[in-house]
Amino acid sequence: MSTAPRTRLSSDERRSQLLDLGVRLFAKRSLAEISIDLLAETAGVSRGLLYHYFGSLAGFQEAVVRRAADDLIARTAPPAEGSTATRLLVSVRAYVEFVDESYEGYLSLVTGARSGNESLWAIYEEARAALTDRVFAADADHLLEDTPATRLLVRGWSALAEEMVLEWKARGGVSRDQVVELIAGALPVLAGALPPAG
Amino acid sequence: MSTAPRTRLSSDERRSQLLDLGVRLFAKRSLAEISIDLLAETAGVSRGLLYHYFGSLAGFQEAVVRRAADDLIARTAPPAEGSTATRLLVSVRAYVEFVDESYEGYLSLVTGARSGNESLWAIYEEARAALTDRVFAADADHLLEDTPATRLLVRGWSALAEEMVLEWKARGGVSRDQVVELIAGALPVLAGALPPAG
Repeated sequence: MSTAPRTRLSSDERRSQLLDLGVRLFAKRSLAEISIDLLAETAGVSRGLLYHYFGSLAGFQEAVVRRAADDLIARTAPPAEGSTATRLLVSVRAYVEFVDESYEGYLSLVTGARSGNESLWAIYEEARAALTDRVFAADADHLLEDTPATRLLVRGWSALAEEMVLEWKARGGVSRDQVVELIAGALPVLAGALPPAG
Repeated sequence: MSTAPRTRLSSDERRSQLLDLGVRLFAKRSLAEISIDLLAETAGVSRGLLYHYFGSLAGFQEAVVRRAADDLIARTAPPAEGSTATRLLVSVRAYVEFVDESYEGYLSLVTGARSGNESLWAIYEEARAALTDRVFAADADHLLEDTPATRLLVRGWSALAEEMVLEWKARGGVSRDQVVELIAGALPVLAGALPPAG
């Protein structure tokens, strides 16, 4: 029988709470700014406990990024009902809102992934693949045949989406709703301009 | 009066030849693989001469990337005559051919620029700005009003172009002509889907 007080969190719960805190920090700071010291201070726990749960700072950062990527994938899930256009709009809006709220962290993930950090790259690629695969899975109106050309186009569209939202965050100039509409509106017209699959 | 033999190259000519060699090496190798030793061996000159011209390995790499970026901008200049669509197609074809021929170097430039190397980032951004500004300058048919929304869209289109050509190089699946047509075809349909400027 456990003699622990009822308020004591299980190891899994405590790890999960620390990770939540990491994700909140990640929203407003680059990965490079998230240190074990900062986390220990903010969470009011010992550095030793953090190393116990995550092994190293890189291990902690990787766990934070994985959690953030999972959040992104979950939040951008299109609704089950509605036209392809509506579901696309809802999904893109959730993506733009995510980047808007987690800009510093998202930017550092993109930068870290592209700078040759293999763990970050794997998580980044997994999230991108999930988001683009979903376009085909959720394409109830058969806007897109699944061909090498449409795969390439959707991949290009995801880069367009990322660039537009990061550029908008950096420079402004248009409203968030406009960014959402520009990105969501781009995919159907790109698909519509494709020659029919041979 | 100079007593140098007629065949001796001027300092500028020799520097320029070394740079040409660097650009040729850059096409088939990442920046990280281009060393002063490799260059000295390939060019048959002393390491000291290379340091004399370029100061450091970073100085040499930066000069090579700047030359490559200038080449890219020059090669992708649209022809003076023809419809906007034709000029766009010619320019995009030159871009795709450039990346096709200089894949390793181009990829390492993109990676280096995004990984926080400020000199490389400046050159990369300068090239991207030249390419996207040109869309507006060369837009004789007034496909695009120059507004914050169209600027954002053209920036997104340039990311789409880069992603599609790098993805095509990495995975294949479609022909080079198809990639050119997909990229060049994307801009007019994206522009056409924009709401009229208010």
